[in-house]
Amino acid sequence: MGRTERDASEGATRDAALKRRSAKRGTMSTVSSAVSETNAPAQGLQGAMPSGPGAVVGGVGSQAGAGDFTGHLFDALPDHVDVYEVGPRDGLQNERTILPLDAKLAMIEGLVDAGIRRIEITSFVNPRWIPALADHMEVATKLRRREGVYYSALVPNLRGLDSASRAGMNEVAIFMAASATHNRKNINKTTAQAFETYAEVCREALDRGMRVRGYVSCVFGCPYEGQVPFENVWQVARGLLDLGVYELSLGDTIGVANPRQVAWVLRKLLAEGVDLSQIAVHFHDTRGTALANVAVALQLGVRTVDSSLGGLGGCPYAPGASGNVATEDVVYMLEGMGVETGIDLDQLPAVSLEVASRLGRELPSKYTKAHVGHCARTGAAV
Amino acid sequence: MGRTERDASEGATRDAALKRRSAKRGTMSTVSSAVSETNAPAQGLQGAMPSGPGAVVGGVGSQAGAGDFTGHLFDALPDHVDVYEVGPRDGLQNERTILPLDAKLAMIEGLVDAGIRRIEITSFVNPRWIPALADHMEVATKLRRREGVYYSALVPNLRGLDSASRAGMNEVAIFMAASATHNRKNINKTTAQAFETYAEVCREALDRGMRVRGYVSCVFGCPYEGQVPFENVWQVARGLLDLGVYELSLGDTIGVANPRQVAWVLRKLLAEGVDLSQIAVHFHDTRGTALANVAVALQLGVRTVDSSLGGLGGCPYAPGASGNVATEDVVYMLEGMGVETGIDLDQLPAVSLEVASRLGRELPSKYTKAHVGHCARTGAAV
Repeated sequence: MGRTERDASEGATRDAALKRRSAKRGTMSTVSSAVSETNAPAQGLQGAMPSGPGAVVGGVGSQAGAGDFTGHLFDALPDHVDVYEVGPRDGLQNERTILPLDAKLAMIEGLVDAGIRRIEITSFVNPRWIPALADHMEVATKLRRREGVYYSALVPNLRGLDSASRAGMNEVAIFMAASATHNRKNINKTTAQAFETYAEVCREALDRGMRVRGYVSCVFGCPYEGQVPFENVWQVARGLLDLGVYELSLGDTIGVANPRQVAWVLRKLLAEGVDLSQIAVHFHDTRGTALANVAVALQLGVRTVDSSLGGLGGCPYAPGASGNVATEDVVYMLEGMGVETGIDLDQLPAVSLEVASRLGRELPSKYTKAHVGHCARTGAAV
Repeated sequence: MGRTERDASEGATRDAALKRRSAKRGTMSTVSSAVSETNAPAQGLQGAMPSGPGAVVGGVGSQAGAGDFTGHLFDALPDHVDVYEVGPRDGLQNERTILPLDAKLAMIEGLVDAGIRRIEITSFVNPRWIPALADHMEVATKLRRREGVYYSALVPNLRGLDSASRAGMNEVAIFMAASATHNRKNINKTTAQAFETYAEVCREALDRGMRVRGYVSCVFGCPYEGQVPFENVWQVARGLLDLGVYELSLGDTIGVANPRQVAWVLRKLLAEGVDLSQIAVHFHDTRGTALANVAVALQLGVRTVDSSLGGLGGCPYAPGASGNVATEDVVYMLEGMGVETGIDLDQLPAVSLEVASRLGRELPSKYTKAHVGHCARTGAAV
């Protein structure tokens, strides 16, 4: 099936899904679903836009000028995106309040009930390093698991891997910064030492039938080194791929990236031969640019986006600053753009608000705030 | 000069400007400037990317797959963008606390000192409608004006225009919704009646040598009607252009838009013959998508972006929800992308924080929050 044909048929499926979903929702949600159906349905969009390289050439020189490129802005937009939930790990690890076990289990199960199929539930690290995740074994073993879901956990070394394995994890994640200084300060290792450790971890994990995800942090900037040359990013990324990780999660750890920079880095990685299926993006919203960065990654065809329920998290270096991009906000944008996530957006605010309540603080998600406002006006249940 | 050649020379200028600016800043700001210089300098970017339609054709089918389109994502990116400040009007009009005159003057002058060259300072409407802007005449007449700055004000009718004219405004703005129901509820007029009134206002304003800006609200969705067909947007947009407005500010009043929808609407307007120089975008960040929407508008070549200091504002229909996209956040993203704004980002947080303090609430800008965190860590002055 050609691109246009495929899009048209999938567009119709998507429209039907949106209609089903909007029928369930309150007014405000219906507005947004309705809007995306009418103003930018995948089907109508494709019909109205030139597609394929021939159309670009034909379009150049027409009166609309720069508008000619529009047709191509979303040509690589995927039909489906995996929203990879990192809230229970990346989100909670820096929270001042330690969430009790039952609240963590409810959070994870609530997310999975809403449709999340890939989720990082904890970190098997020494509790002295991350007290908020000291209950990793309990979280992993007491969880009501669901078929078809990848439950992952961060492991810093063989010991962590062994615990994760005993706890029944089917995926683990390893992490390295593209900045040598950050590695030294954060994991107390040189880049070479980190690779030695991870080589053992990966071999063992793959032997046990687990899959391994690799985080590359500080891809777009480092709090110690400032600029991070692409060569450093590529060195770490290639090293992790060589060890057998199935996916790289490219992190803007301190939230400094902008869309043009994101496109530049992604394109360099694609040019090095990394496949789109091996790339995930992981943006922190410290300066508000996270969703813009997600959007440009989608334009390049990236199919996995990390996010954290409510925008949980925050950087230990920036008190009060935002954490990961919020899952609700990502799902809202994606579904509005006609990208299927398999997640029921309507179910997320309640899970998010419950976590916020247990942590005793408001979470940054704007979608959830808007949803709460909508419910207050209409008297609907959150 | 060809596009590539021009970019290369302007890229160099921009790099120099970034270097000057980063030299003045604290570490965190330097990180971001430095990052954008190294990872995505305009010069290196152009050099590394294919440009022109021929390159697209050549690129398709290469191993990078969807990455081929990257080169074109930012081809229409403008070198300079006007950040149109609407905080003193659109931002303050819905605040619960009424800012006193001296604070308004300090805010406007602080923004202009930072480099803002287009700013909407108030609204000449009946004080009973908008008590927060009842001091419009004082604001407009007591302001210390600066050469080369466009000071604008909203006017609903001839009486407002007359007051604005007596107060020495060189620009006024008129406003209409793309939704008939919104017009009826918001300005108590049918679309036809609104056009009659504005025809007189425009004629009179142009006769007096003022320029007129036209807001189209509810372009991407309406709180009453939900979906807004493009035909309705175009009817209002064309009508305003016919009256002689120099620019249309396309508003996502309730903050529901997504980047794909934004591209679709903009492209339709360009296809109708509207020139890029006549288009401004005005996004509310109610669901967190505002900067993503700004980014896609830039990709289409839009050169004017409305924003509000600190993210001031909020919608009367959504208590607690975010207002306009924050000026600091827009400037941060634009400058990081190599788009010149003429605004000194370093000066904005202090102005923003002073307004927040006078209003007695934290404002949503993420950049300012990150800046405050940075200053707290380093002991630097905000």
